[in-house]
Amino acid sequence: MMEPQVVECVPNFSEGRDQEVVNQIVQSIRSCGCRVLDVSSDASHNRTVVTFTGTPARVEEAAFQCTKRAAELIDMERHRGEHPRIGATDVIPFVPIRGVTMDECVQMARRVGKRIGEELHIPVYLYAKAATREDRVRLPDIRKGEYEGLKEAIKVDPARAPDYGPLELHPTAGATAVGARPPLIAFNVNLDTPDVRIAKSIARDIRESSGGLPHVQAKGVIIEETGLAQVTMNLLDYQETPISLVYQHIEEEARKRGTNIRDSEIVGMVPLDALLEVVYSRLKLKGFSKHRILDFNI
Amino acid sequence: MMEPQVVECVPNFSEGRDQEVVNQIVQSIRSCGCRVLDVSSDASHNRTVVTFTGTPARVEEAAFQCTKRAAELIDMERHRGEHPRIGATDVIPFVPIRGVTMDECVQMARRVGKRIGEELHIPVYLYAKAATREDRVRLPDIRKGEYEGLKEAIKVDPARAPDYGPLELHPTAGATAVGARPPLIAFNVNLDTPDVRIAKSIARDIRESSGGLPHVQAKGVIIEETGLAQVTMNLLDYQETPISLVYQHIEEEARKRGTNIRDSEIVGMVPLDALLEVVYSRLKLKGFSKHRILDFNI
Repeated sequence: MMEPQVVECVPNFSEGRDQEVVNQIVQSIRSCGCRVLDVSSDASHNRTVVTFTGTPARVEEAAFQCTKRAAELIDMERHRGEHPRIGATDVIPFVPIRGVTMDECVQMARRVGKRIGEELHIPVYLYAKAATREDRVRLPDIRKGEYEGLKEAIKVDPARAPDYGPLELHPTAGATAVGARPPLIAFNVNLDTPDVRIAKSIARDIRESSGGLPHVQAKGVIIEETGLAQVTMNLLDYQETPISLVYQHIEEEARKRGTNIRDSEIVGMVPLDALLEVVYSRLKLKGFSKHRILDFNI
Repeated sequence: MMEPQVVECVPNFSEGRDQEVVNQIVQSIRSCGCRVLDVSSDASHNRTVVTFTGTPARVEEAAFQCTKRAAELIDMERHRGEHPRIGATDVIPFVPIRGVTMDECVQMARRVGKRIGEELHIPVYLYAKAATREDRVRLPDIRKGEYEGLKEAIKVDPARAPDYGPLELHPTAGATAVGARPPLIAFNVNLDTPDVRIAKSIARDIRESSGGLPHVQAKGVIIEETGLAQVTMNLLDYQETPISLVYQHIEEEARKRGTNIRDSEIVGMVPLDALLEVVYSRLKLKGFSKHRILDFNI
Protein backbone atom coordinates (compact mmCIF):
# COMPACT_ATOMS: atom_id res chain seq x y z
CA MET A 1 0.00 0.00 0.00
CA MET A 2 1.46 3.34 -1.10
CA GLU A 3 0.89 5.84 1.65
CA PRO A 4 0.31 9.41 0.48
CA GLN A 5 3.01 12.03 1.12
CA VAL A 6 2.26 14.29 4.08
CA VAL A 7 3.74 17.64 5.06
CA GLU A 8 2.81 19.55 8.20
CA CYS A 9 2.75 23.35 8.30
CA VAL A 10 2.55 25.46 11.48
CA PRO A 11 2.11 29.14 10.55
CA ASN A 12 2.00 31.73 13.35
CA PHE A 13 -0.25 34.76 12.85
CA SER A 14 -0.11 38.08 14.73
CA GLU A 15 -3.74 38.00 15.85
CA GLY A 16 -4.89 36.17 18.98
CA ARG A 17 -7.95 38.19 20.05
CA ASP A 18 -10.27 38.69 17.08
CA GLN A 19 -11.90 35.29 16.52
CA GLU A 20 -13.45 36.37 13.24
CA VAL A 21 -10.05 37.18 11.72
CA VAL A 22 -8.67 33.83 12.93
CA ASN A 23 -11.66 32.00 11.42
CA GLN A 24 -11.15 33.59 8.02
CA ILE A 25 -7.46 32.67 8.00
CA VAL A 26 -8.24 29.08 9.00
CA GLN A 27 -10.91 28.94 6.30
CA SER A 28 -8.35 29.95 3.65
CA ILE A 29 -6.30 26.89 4.68
CA ARG A 30 -9.23 24.47 4.67
CA SER A 31 -10.26 25.74 1.22
CA CYS A 32 -7.03 24.35 -0.17
CA GLY A 33 -7.99 20.82 0.92
CA CYS A 34 -5.71 20.67 3.96
CA ARG A 35 -6.61 19.19 7.32
CA VAL A 36 -6.50 21.66 10.21
CA LEU A 37 -5.36 19.75 13.31
CA ASP A 38 -5.17 22.56 15.83
CA VAL A 39 -5.81 26.29 16.22
CA SER A 40 -4.35 27.84 19.39
CA SER A 41 -4.98 31.54 20.02
CA ASP A 42 -3.29 33.38 22.88
CA ALA A 43 -4.69 36.78 23.86
CA SER A 44 -1.70 38.07 25.84
CA HIS A 45 0.67 37.07 23.03
CA ASN A 46 -1.98 38.30 20.56
CA ARG A 47 -0.93 35.41 18.38
CA THR A 48 -2.47 32.29 16.80
CA VAL A 49 -0.68 29.08 15.91
CA VAL A 50 -2.40 26.91 13.29
CA THR A 51 -1.28 23.32 12.69
CA PHE A 52 -2.34 21.75 9.41
CA THR A 53 -1.34 18.85 7.16
CA GLY A 54 -1.84 17.69 3.60
CA THR A 55 -0.05 16.62 0.45
CA PRO A 56 2.98 18.78 -0.41
CA ALA A 57 1.14 20.57 -3.25
CA ARG A 58 -1.90 21.42 -1.13
CA VAL A 59 0.16 22.53 1.85
CA GLU A 60 2.27 24.76 -0.37
CA GLU A 61 -0.80 26.43 -1.83
CA ALA A 62 -2.46 26.80 1.61
CA ALA A 63 0.68 28.40 3.05
CA PHE A 64 0.54 31.07 0.34
CA GLN A 65 -3.24 31.62 0.59
CA CYS A 66 -3.26 32.05 4.39
CA THR A 67 -0.39 34.54 4.15
CA LYS A 68 -2.39 36.48 1.56
CA ARG A 69 -5.50 36.42 3.76
CA ALA A 70 -3.57 37.48 6.87
CA ALA A 71 -2.03 40.39 4.94
CA GLU A 72 -5.55 41.61 4.13
CA LEU A 73 -6.89 41.24 7.67
CA ILE A 74 -4.06 42.10 10.06
CA ASP A 75 -2.45 45.52 10.45
CA MET A 76 0.97 45.31 12.07
CA GLU A 77 0.94 49.09 12.64
CA ARG A 78 -1.68 48.49 15.32
CA HIS A 79 -0.46 45.15 16.67
CA ARG A 80 0.61 44.83 20.32
CA GLY A 81 1.50 41.55 22.03
CA GLU A 82 4.12 39.93 24.22
CA HIS A 83 5.55 37.53 21.66
CA PRO A 84 8.34 38.83 19.38
CA ARG A 85 7.11 39.12 15.78
CA ILE A 86 7.93 40.71 12.43
CA GLY A 87 4.73 40.31 10.43
CA ALA A 88 1.04 39.44 10.09
CA THR A 89 2.08 35.93 9.12
CA ASP A 90 5.11 35.88 11.36
CA VAL A 91 6.59 32.51 10.54
CA ILE A 92 5.77 29.53 8.29
CA PRO A 93 7.62 26.27 8.96
CA PHE A 94 7.20 23.21 6.72
CA VAL A 95 7.69 19.87 8.49
CA PRO A 96 8.27 16.53 6.69
CA ILE A 97 5.92 13.92 8.15
CA ARG A 98 5.58 10.97 5.77
CA GLY A 99 7.19 10.07 2.47
CA VAL A 100 8.80 13.51 2.21
CA THR A 101 12.42 14.50 2.81
CA MET A 102 13.66 17.56 4.65
CA ASP A 103 15.17 18.71 1.38
CA GLU A 104 11.76 18.65 -0.30
CA CYS A 105 10.42 20.83 2.53
CA VAL A 106 13.33 23.21 2.02
CA GLN A 107 12.36 23.46 -1.67
CA MET A 108 8.74 24.16 -0.66
CA ALA A 109 9.89 26.94 1.66
CA ARG A 110 11.92 28.53 -1.13
CA ARG A 111 9.10 28.36 -3.68
CA VAL A 112 6.48 29.74 -1.27
CA GLY A 113 8.92 32.38 -0.01
CA LYS A 114 9.64 33.54 -3.54
CA ARG A 115 5.94 33.72 -4.37
CA ILE A 116 5.09 35.65 -1.18
CA GLY A 117 7.85 38.10 -2.00
CA GLU A 118 6.91 38.57 -5.64
CA GLU A 119 3.10 38.40 -5.56
CA LEU A 120 2.32 39.86 -2.11
CA HIS A 121 5.31 42.25 -1.89
CA ILE A 122 6.12 40.96 1.59
CA PRO A 123 9.85 40.53 2.35
CA VAL A 124 10.69 36.91 3.23
CA TYR A 125 13.55 35.54 5.33
CA LEU A 126 14.39 31.85 4.89
CA TYR A 127 15.16 30.21 8.24
CA ALA A 128 16.00 26.89 9.97
CA LYS A 129 16.90 24.15 7.45
CA ALA A 130 15.96 26.50 4.61
CA ALA A 131 18.25 29.31 5.79
CA THR A 132 20.72 30.67 3.23
CA ARG A 133 22.96 32.21 5.89
CA GLU A 134 24.27 31.01 9.23
CA ASP A 135 22.82 34.05 11.03
CA ARG A 136 19.30 33.25 9.79
CA VAL A 137 19.01 29.71 11.11
CA ARG A 138 17.48 30.86 14.40
CA LEU A 139 14.26 32.89 14.52
CA PRO A 140 15.39 35.25 17.31
CA ASP A 141 18.18 36.48 15.01
CA ILE A 142 15.68 37.19 12.22
CA ARG A 143 13.24 38.86 14.65
CA LYS A 144 15.87 41.20 16.16
CA GLY A 145 14.21 44.59 16.70
CA GLU A 146 10.85 43.06 15.78
CA TYR A 147 8.45 44.66 13.31
CA GLU A 148 9.15 48.17 14.54
CA GLY A 149 12.94 47.86 14.39
CA LEU A 150 13.06 45.92 11.14
CA LYS A 151 11.08 48.68 9.39
CA GLU A 152 14.18 50.86 9.31
CA ALA A 153 16.89 48.18 9.38
CA ILE A 154 15.67 46.43 6.23
CA LYS A 155 16.23 49.61 4.24
CA VAL A 156 19.69 50.51 5.51
CA ASP A 157 21.42 47.34 6.77
CA PRO A 158 22.54 44.93 3.99
CA ALA A 159 22.65 42.14 6.61
CA ARG A 160 18.89 42.51 7.04
CA ALA A 161 18.06 42.34 3.30
CA PRO A 162 15.41 39.65 2.74
CA ASP A 163 15.92 36.48 0.67
CA TYR A 164 12.85 37.40 -1.43
CA GLY A 165 10.63 40.43 -1.89
CA PRO A 166 11.18 44.17 -1.58
CA LEU A 167 13.77 46.01 0.51
CA GLU A 168 11.00 47.46 2.64
CA LEU A 169 8.34 46.03 4.93
CA HIS A 170 4.81 45.51 3.62
CA PRO A 171 2.84 48.55 4.94
CA THR A 172 0.46 46.40 7.02
CA ALA A 173 1.77 42.81 6.86
CA GLY A 174 5.44 43.45 7.71
CA ALA A 175 7.74 40.54 6.86
CA THR A 176 7.57 36.76 7.11
CA ALA A 177 10.05 34.02 8.00
CA VAL A 178 9.60 30.86 5.91
CA GLY A 179 11.51 27.66 6.58
CA ALA A 180 11.70 23.91 7.04
CA ARG A 181 12.35 22.06 10.29
CA PRO A 182 11.78 18.71 11.99
CA PRO A 183 8.66 18.34 14.15
CA LEU A 184 8.99 20.38 17.34
CA ILE A 185 8.07 18.80 20.65
CA ALA A 186 6.82 20.94 23.54
CA PHE A 187 7.95 18.98 26.60
CA ASN A 188 7.52 20.10 30.22
CA VAL A 189 9.04 18.45 33.28
CA ASN A 190 7.51 19.21 36.67
CA LEU A 191 9.84 19.12 39.67
CA ASP A 192 9.01 18.05 43.19
CA THR A 193 9.86 21.49 44.54
CA PRO A 194 8.23 24.94 44.73
CA ASP A 195 11.68 26.52 44.26
CA VAL A 196 11.68 28.12 40.80
CA ARG A 197 15.40 28.85 41.12
CA ILE A 198 16.09 25.12 40.80
CA ALA A 199 14.04 24.93 37.58
CA LYS A 200 15.79 28.02 36.20
CA SER A 201 19.19 26.62 37.07
CA ILE A 202 18.43 23.25 35.42
CA ALA A 203 17.02 25.02 32.35
CA ARG A 204 20.25 27.01 32.07
CA ASP A 205 22.28 23.81 32.24
CA ILE A 206 20.39 21.95 29.54
CA ARG A 207 19.51 24.59 26.93
CA GLU A 208 21.61 25.00 23.84
CA SER A 209 21.92 28.77 24.11
CA SER A 210 23.91 28.46 27.33
CA GLY A 211 26.04 25.54 26.18
CA GLY A 212 23.74 22.60 27.05
CA LEU A 213 22.05 20.07 24.79
CA PRO A 214 21.79 20.85 21.05
CA HIS A 215 18.34 21.86 19.73
CA VAL A 216 16.90 22.36 23.23
CA GLN A 217 15.20 25.58 24.32
CA ALA A 218 14.41 25.62 28.05
CA LYS A 219 13.35 27.92 30.82
CA GLY A 220 12.36 27.52 34.46
CA VAL A 221 8.90 28.68 35.55
CA ILE A 222 6.51 28.25 38.44
CA ILE A 223 3.12 26.65 37.74
CA GLU A 224 0.41 28.51 39.62
CA GLU A 225 -2.08 25.64 39.82
CA THR A 226 0.37 23.29 41.56
CA GLY A 227 2.81 25.75 43.13
CA LEU A 228 5.64 23.62 41.72
CA ALA A 229 8.63 24.50 39.60
CA GLN A 230 8.72 23.38 35.97
CA VAL A 231 11.37 23.11 33.28
CA THR A 232 9.44 24.05 30.12
CA MET A 233 11.08 23.13 26.83
CA ASN A 234 10.95 23.04 23.07
CA LEU A 235 12.85 20.13 21.58
CA LEU A 236 13.68 21.42 18.11
CA ASP A 237 15.18 18.22 16.72
CA TYR A 238 14.13 15.06 18.56
CA GLN A 239 16.24 12.86 16.30
CA GLU A 240 19.43 14.70 17.25
CA THR A 241 18.47 15.22 20.90
CA PRO A 242 15.84 12.64 21.89
CA ILE A 243 13.27 12.97 24.67
CA SER A 244 14.84 10.23 26.79
CA LEU A 245 18.21 11.98 26.78
CA VAL A 246 16.67 15.28 27.85
CA TYR A 247 14.65 13.56 30.58
CA GLN A 248 17.68 11.72 31.88
CA HIS A 249 19.70 14.94 32.09
CA ILE A 250 16.96 16.70 34.04
CA GLU A 251 16.62 13.66 36.31
CA GLU A 252 20.33 13.80 37.13
CA GLU A 253 20.42 17.60 37.54
CA ALA A 254 17.35 17.50 39.80
CA ARG A 255 18.98 14.87 42.04
CA LYS A 256 22.16 16.91 42.28
CA ARG A 257 20.01 19.75 43.60
CA GLY A 258 18.23 17.55 46.14
CA THR A 259 14.90 17.18 44.33
CA ASN A 260 13.19 14.86 41.86
CA ILE A 261 10.97 14.79 38.81
CA ARG A 262 7.32 14.62 39.83
CA ASP A 263 5.87 14.08 36.34
CA SER A 264 6.09 15.34 32.77
CA GLU A 265 3.79 16.39 29.96
CA ILE A 266 3.89 16.71 26.19
CA VAL A 267 1.93 19.70 24.89
CA GLY A 268 0.31 19.37 21.49
CA MET A 269 1.27 16.81 18.89
CA VAL A 270 4.24 14.45 18.92
CA PRO A 271 5.60 12.09 16.24
CA LEU A 272 5.34 8.39 17.07
CA ASP A 273 9.06 7.97 16.39
CA ALA A 274 9.88 10.35 19.23
CA LEU A 275 7.88 8.20 21.66
CA LEU A 276 9.25 4.90 20.35
CA GLU A 277 12.76 6.20 20.99
CA VAL A 278 11.86 6.34 24.70
CA VAL A 279 10.79 2.68 24.52
CA TYR A 280 13.99 1.64 22.72
CA SER A 281 16.09 3.50 25.23
CA ARG A 282 14.28 2.25 28.35
CA LEU A 283 14.13 -1.42 27.27
CA LYS A 284 17.41 -1.45 25.32
CA LEU A 285 15.10 -2.81 22.64
CA LYS A 286 16.80 -4.02 19.47
CA GLY A 287 15.58 -5.19 16.07
CA PHE A 288 12.20 -3.50 16.36
CA SER A 289 10.36 -1.60 13.65
CA LYS A 290 7.01 0.12 13.79
CA HIS A 291 5.60 -2.30 11.23
CA ARG A 292 5.39 -4.69 14.17
CA ILE A 293 2.85 -2.50 15.92
CA LEU A 294 -0.49 -4.30 15.71
CA ASP A 295 -2.48 -1.09 15.32
CA PHE A 296 -0.81 -0.37 11.97
CA ASN A 297 -1.54 -3.81 10.55
CA ILE A 298 -5.24 -4.28 11.03
CA MET B 1 -14.44 8.98 11.23
CA MET B 2 -15.92 5.68 12.45
CA GLU B 3 -13.15 3.11 12.56
CA PRO B 4 -14.21 -0.45 11.69
CA GLN B 5 -14.26 -3.09 14.43
CA VAL B 6 -11.25 -5.40 14.38
CA VAL B 7 -10.70 -8.78 16.01
CA GLU B 8 -7.45 -10.73 15.83
CA CYS B 9 -7.41 -14.53 15.76
CA VAL B 10 -4.29 -16.70 16.29
CA PRO B 11 -5.14 -20.35 15.59
CA ASN B 12 -2.44 -23.01 16.14
CA PHE B 13 -2.42 -26.00 13.79
CA SER B 14 -0.68 -29.35 14.34
CA GLU B 15 1.28 -29.26 11.08
CA GLY B 16 4.62 -27.50 10.73
CA ARG B 17 6.35 -29.48 8.02
CA ASP B 18 4.03 -29.92 5.03
CA GLN B 19 3.92 -26.49 3.37
CA GLU B 20 1.08 -27.51 1.05
CA VAL B 21 -1.20 -28.33 3.99
CA VAL B 22 -0.32 -25.01 5.65
CA ASN B 23 -1.04 -23.14 2.40
CA GLN B 24 -4.49 -24.68 2.07
CA ILE B 25 -5.38 -23.78 5.66
CA VAL B 26 -4.18 -20.21 5.19
CA GLN B 27 -6.16 -20.00 1.95
CA SER B 28 -9.36 -20.97 3.79
CA ILE B 29 -8.79 -17.95 6.07
CA ARG B 30 -8.07 -15.51 3.24
CA SER B 31 -11.19 -16.72 1.39
CA CYS B 32 -13.30 -15.32 4.22
CA GLY B 33 -11.96 -11.81 3.60
CA CYS B 34 -9.56 -11.73 6.53
CA ARG B 35 -6.05 -10.29 6.48
CA VAL B 36 -3.31 -12.81 7.25
CA LEU B 37 -0.55 -10.96 9.12
CA ASP B 38 1.80 -13.81 9.87
CA VAL B 39 2.29 -17.54 9.29
CA SER B 40 4.99 -19.16 11.45
CA SER B 41 5.72 -22.87 10.96
CA ASP B 42 8.09 -24.75 13.26
CA ALA B 43 9.33 -28.15 12.09
CA SER B 44 10.51 -29.49 15.46
CA HIS B 45 7.22 -28.47 17.10
CA ASN B 46 5.45 -29.65 13.91
CA ARG B 47 3.11 -26.74 14.45
CA THR B 48 1.98 -23.58 12.61
CA VAL B 49 0.74 -20.37 14.17
CA VAL B 50 -1.37 -18.14 11.89
CA THR B 51 -2.18 -14.54 12.87
CA PHE B 52 -5.09 -12.91 11.08
CA THR B 53 -7.48 -9.99 11.55
CA GLY B 54 -10.80 -8.77 10.24
CA THR B 55 -14.26 -7.66 11.24
CA PRO B 56 -15.85 -9.84 13.96
CA ALA B 57 -18.19 -11.57 11.48
CA ARG B 58 -15.41 -12.43 9.00
CA VAL B 59 -13.02 -13.60 11.70
CA GLU B 60 -15.72 -15.81 13.21
CA GLU B 61 -16.42 -17.42 9.84
CA ALA B 62 -12.71 -17.85 9.06
CA ALA B 63 -12.08 -19.51 12.45
CA PHE B 64 -14.71 -22.11 11.61
CA GLN B 65 -13.57 -22.64 8.01
CA CYS B 66 -9.89 -23.13 8.89
CA THR B 67 -10.83 -25.64 11.59
CA LYS B 68 -12.89 -27.53 9.01
CA ARG B 69 -10.02 -27.49 6.51
CA ALA B 70 -7.46 -28.61 9.12
CA ALA B 71 -9.76 -31.51 10.13
CA GLU B 72 -9.73 -32.68 6.51
CA LEU B 73 -5.96 -32.34 6.05
CA ILE B 74 -4.32 -33.28 9.37
CA ASP B 75 -4.37 -36.71 10.99
CA MET B 76 -3.62 -36.56 14.70
CA GLU B 77 -3.11 -40.32 14.79
CA ARG B 78 0.12 -39.76 12.86
CA HIS B 79 1.18 -36.45 14.41
CA ARG B 80 4.47 -36.19 16.32
CA GLY B 81 6.00 -32.97 17.63
CA GLU B 82 7.51 -31.37 20.70
CA HIS B 83 4.72 -28.94 21.51
CA PRO B 84 1.81 -30.23 23.66
CA ARG B 85 -1.41 -30.46 21.59
CA ILE B 86 -4.88 -32.03 21.57
CA GLY B 87 -6.05 -31.55 17.99
CA ALA B 88 -5.48 -30.65 14.34
CA THR B 89 -6.63 -27.15 15.17
CA ASP B 90 -5.16 -27.14 18.63
CA VAL B 91 -6.27 -23.76 19.93
CA ILE B 92 -8.22 -20.74 18.62
CA PRO B 93 -7.97 -17.50 20.60
CA PHE B 94 -9.99 -14.39 19.71
CA VAL B 95 -8.33 -11.10 20.63
CA PRO B 96 -10.16 -7.74 20.81
CA ILE B 97 -8.15 -5.13 18.90
CA ARG B 98 -10.33 -2.13 18.04
CA GLY B 99 -13.93 -1.20 18.84
CA VAL B 100 -14.62 -4.64 20.29
CA THR B 101 -14.91 -5.66 23.95
CA MET B 102 -13.46 -8.76 25.54
CA ASP B 103 -17.01 -9.87 26.22
CA GLU B 104 -17.83 -9.77 22.51
CA CYS B 105 -14.79 -11.98 21.84
CA VAL B 106 -16.02 -14.38 24.54
CA GLN B 107 -19.37 -14.55 22.71
CA MET B 108 -17.54 -15.23 19.42
CA ALA B 109 -15.61 -18.07 21.06
CA ARG B 110 -18.83 -19.63 22.35
CA ARG B 111 -20.63 -19.39 19.00
CA VAL B 112 -17.67 -20.78 17.02
CA GLY B 113 -17.10 -23.48 19.66
CA LYS B 114 -20.72 -24.59 19.51
CA ARG B 115 -20.62 -24.72 15.70
CA ILE B 116 -17.35 -26.71 15.63
CA GLY B 117 -18.86 -29.18 18.09
CA GLU B 118 -22.17 -29.55 16.30
CA GLU B 119 -21.17 -29.37 12.63
CA LEU B 120 -17.67 -30.87 12.67
CA HIS B 121 -18.19 -33.25 15.61
CA ILE B 122 -14.99 -32.05 17.24
CA PRO B 123 -15.14 -31.67 21.05
CA VAL B 124 -14.44 -28.06 22.12
CA TYR B 125 -13.05 -26.74 25.41
CA LEU B 126 -13.63 -23.06 26.15
CA TYR B 127 -10.51 -21.46 27.72
CA ALA B 128 -8.99 -18.20 28.99
CA LYS B 129 -11.60 -15.42 29.30
CA ALA B 130 -14.19 -17.71 27.67
CA ALA B 131 -13.64 -20.56 30.15
CA THR B 132 -16.72 -21.90 31.92
CA ARG B 133 -14.72 -23.49 34.71
CA GLU B 134 -11.75 -22.35 36.82
CA ASP B 135 -9.70 -25.42 35.77
CA ARG B 136 -10.06 -24.57 32.07
CA VAL B 137 -8.65 -21.06 32.15
CA ARG B 138 -5.11 -22.25 31.44
CA LEU B 139 -4.25 -24.26 28.30
CA PRO B 140 -1.86 -26.68 30.05
CA ASP B 141 -4.77 -27.89 32.20
CA ILE B 142 -6.88 -28.53 29.11
CA ARG B 143 -3.97 -30.24 27.29
CA LYS B 144 -3.17 -32.61 30.17
CA GLY B 145 -2.30 -36.03 28.68
CA GLU B 146 -2.37 -34.41 25.19
CA TYR B 147 -4.20 -35.96 22.24
CA GLU B 148 -3.23 -39.50 23.19
CA GLY B 149 -4.28 -39.23 26.84
CA LEU B 150 -7.44 -37.23 26.20
CA LYS B 151 -8.70 -39.93 23.83
CA GLU B 152 -9.59 -42.14 26.82
CA ALA B 153 -10.10 -39.48 29.48
CA ILE B 154 -12.84 -37.66 27.56
CA LYS B 155 -14.97 -40.81 27.63
CA VAL B 156 -14.58 -41.75 31.28
CA ASP B 157 -13.73 -38.61 33.28
CA PRO B 158 -16.64 -36.16 33.72
CA ALA B 159 -14.07 -33.42 34.50
CA ARG B 160 -12.78 -33.79 30.92
CA ALA B 161 -16.20 -33.57 29.24
CA PRO B 162 -16.07 -30.83 26.57
CA ASP B 163 -18.15 -27.64 26.57
CA TYR B 164 -19.48 -28.48 23.10
CA GLY B 165 -19.46 -31.50 20.80
CA PRO B 166 -19.34 -35.25 21.37
CA LEU B 167 -17.93 -37.13 24.37
CA GLU B 168 -15.22 -38.59 22.15
CA LEU B 169 -12.35 -37.19 20.12
CA HIS B 170 -12.76 -36.64 16.40
CA PRO B 171 -11.04 -39.67 14.79
CA THR B 172 -8.43 -37.57 13.00
CA ALA B 173 -8.86 -33.97 14.24
CA GLY B 174 -8.93 -34.65 17.99
CA ALA B 175 -10.24 -31.76 20.09
CA THR B 176 -9.91 -27.95 20.01
CA ALA B 177 -9.60 -25.26 22.67
CA VAL B 178 -11.47 -22.05 21.77
CA GLY B 179 -11.23 -18.89 23.82
CA ALA B 180 -10.75 -15.14 24.14
CA ARG B 181 -7.74 -13.35 25.58
CA PRO B 182 -5.89 -10.02 25.46
CA PRO B 183 -3.05 -9.66 22.94
CA LEU B 184 -0.05 -11.75 23.96
CA ILE B 185 3.42 -10.23 23.86
CA ALA B 186 6.49 -12.41 23.28
CA PHE B 187 9.25 -10.53 25.12
CA ASN B 188 12.85 -11.69 25.53
CA VAL B 189 15.49 -10.12 27.74
CA ASN B 190 19.15 -10.93 27.01
CA LEU B 191 21.52 -10.93 29.96
CA ASP B 192 25.15 -9.90 29.98
CA THR B 193 26.22 -13.39 31.07
CA PRO B 194 26.72 -16.81 29.46
CA ASP B 195 25.44 -18.45 32.70
CA VAL B 196 22.04 -19.98 31.87
CA ARG B 197 21.48 -20.73 35.55
CA ILE B 198 21.06 -17.02 36.21
CA ALA B 199 18.41 -16.75 33.48
CA LYS B 200 16.61 -19.84 34.82
CA SER B 201 16.70 -18.48 38.34
CA ILE B 202 15.32 -15.07 37.28
CA ALA B 203 12.63 -16.78 35.17
CA ARG B 204 11.57 -18.79 38.21
CA ASP B 205 11.34 -15.61 40.30
CA ILE B 206 9.18 -13.70 37.86
CA ARG B 207 6.80 -16.27 36.35
CA GLU B 208 3.30 -16.65 37.67
CA SER B 209 3.43 -20.43 37.99
CA SER B 210 6.10 -20.21 40.67
CA GLY B 211 4.55 -17.28 42.51
CA GLY B 212 5.98 -14.35 40.52
CA LEU B 213 4.20 -11.77 38.41
CA PRO B 214 0.62 -12.46 37.26
CA HIS B 215 0.10 -13.40 33.60
CA VAL B 216 3.83 -13.95 32.99
CA GLN B 217 5.25 -17.17 31.53
CA ALA B 218 9.05 -17.26 31.63
CA LYS B 219 11.96 -19.58 31.19
CA GLY B 220 15.73 -19.26 31.09
CA VAL B 221 17.58 -20.38 27.95
CA ILE B 222 20.95 -20.00 26.28
CA ILE B 223 21.08 -18.33 22.85
CA GLU B 224 23.51 -20.19 20.63
CA GLU B 225 24.31 -17.29 18.30
CA THR B 226 25.45 -15.01 21.11
CA GLY B 227 26.38 -17.53 23.81
CA LEU B 228 24.42 -15.39 26.26
CA ALA B 229 21.64 -16.28 28.68
CA GLN B 230 18.10 -15.10 27.96
CA VAL B 231 14.88 -14.81 29.92
CA THR B 232 12.23 -15.67 27.30
CA MET B 233 8.66 -14.71 28.14
CA ASN B 234 5.04 -14.55 27.14
CA LEU B 235 3.19 -11.64 28.69
CA LEU B 236 -0.40 -12.87 28.68
CA ASP B 237 -2.04 -9.67 29.87
CA TYR B 238 0.05 -6.53 29.34
CA GLN B 239 -2.61 -4.32 30.89
CA GLU B 240 -2.45 -6.20 34.20
CA THR B 241 1.32 -6.78 34.10
CA PRO B 242 2.92 -4.21 31.82
CA ILE B 243 6.22 -4.55 29.96
CA SER B 244 7.95 -1.86 32.03
CA LEU B 245 7.15 -3.67 35.28
CA VAL B 246 8.50 -6.97 33.96
CA TYR B 247 11.64 -5.27 32.66
CA GLN B 248 12.23 -3.49 35.95
CA HIS B 249 11.92 -6.74 37.90
CA ILE B 250 14.42 -8.48 35.65
CA GLU B 251 16.76 -5.49 35.89
CA GLU B 252 16.70 -5.69 39.69
CA GLU B 253 17.02 -9.48 39.82
CA ALA B 254 19.92 -9.40 37.35
CA ARG B 255 21.75 -6.83 39.47
CA LYS B 256 21.24 -8.92 42.60
CA ARG B 257 22.97 -11.76 40.76
CA GLY B 258 25.88 -9.59 39.67
CA THR B 259 24.91 -9.14 36.03
CA ASN B 260 22.96 -6.74 33.81
CA ILE B 261 20.50 -6.59 30.95
CA ARG B 262 22.33 -6.40 27.63
CA ASP B 263 19.27 -5.78 25.44
CA SER B 264 15.73 -6.98 24.81
CA GLU B 265 13.51 -7.93 21.90
CA ILE B 266 9.83 -8.18 21.11
CA VAL B 267 8.96 -11.14 18.86
CA GLY B 268 6.01 -10.73 16.50
CA MET B 269 3.32 -8.13 16.90
CA VAL B 270 2.71 -5.79 19.82
CA PRO B 271 -0.18 -3.42 20.55
CA LEU B 272 0.74 0.27 20.56
CA ASP B 273 -0.78 0.64 24.05
CA ALA B 274 1.76 -1.79 25.44
CA LEU B 275 4.62 0.35 24.10
CA LEU B 276 3.10 3.65 25.20
CA GLU B 277 2.88 2.30 28.74
CA VAL B 278 6.69 2.08 28.71
CA VAL B 279 6.83 5.77 27.70
CA TYR B 280 4.35 6.81 30.43
CA SER B 281 6.29 4.86 33.01
CA ARG B 282 9.74 6.08 31.99
CA LEU B 283 8.79 9.78 31.66
CA LYS B 284 6.12 9.79 34.43
CA LEU B 285 4.07 11.23 31.57
CA LYS B 286 0.61 12.47 32.52
CA GLY B 287 -2.39 13.70 30.57
CA PHE B 288 -1.37 12.07 27.30
CA SER B 289 -3.59 10.24 24.85
CA LYS B 290 -2.70 8.58 21.59
CA HIS B 291 -4.83 11.06 19.67
CA ARG B 292 -1.89 13.41 20.19
CA ILE B 293 0.38 11.23 18.10
CA LEU B 294 0.97 13.07 14.84
CA ASP B 295 1.02 9.89 12.76
CA PHE B 296 -2.64 9.21 13.58
CA ASN B 297 -3.80 12.68 12.59
CA ILE B 298 -2.48 13.18 9.11
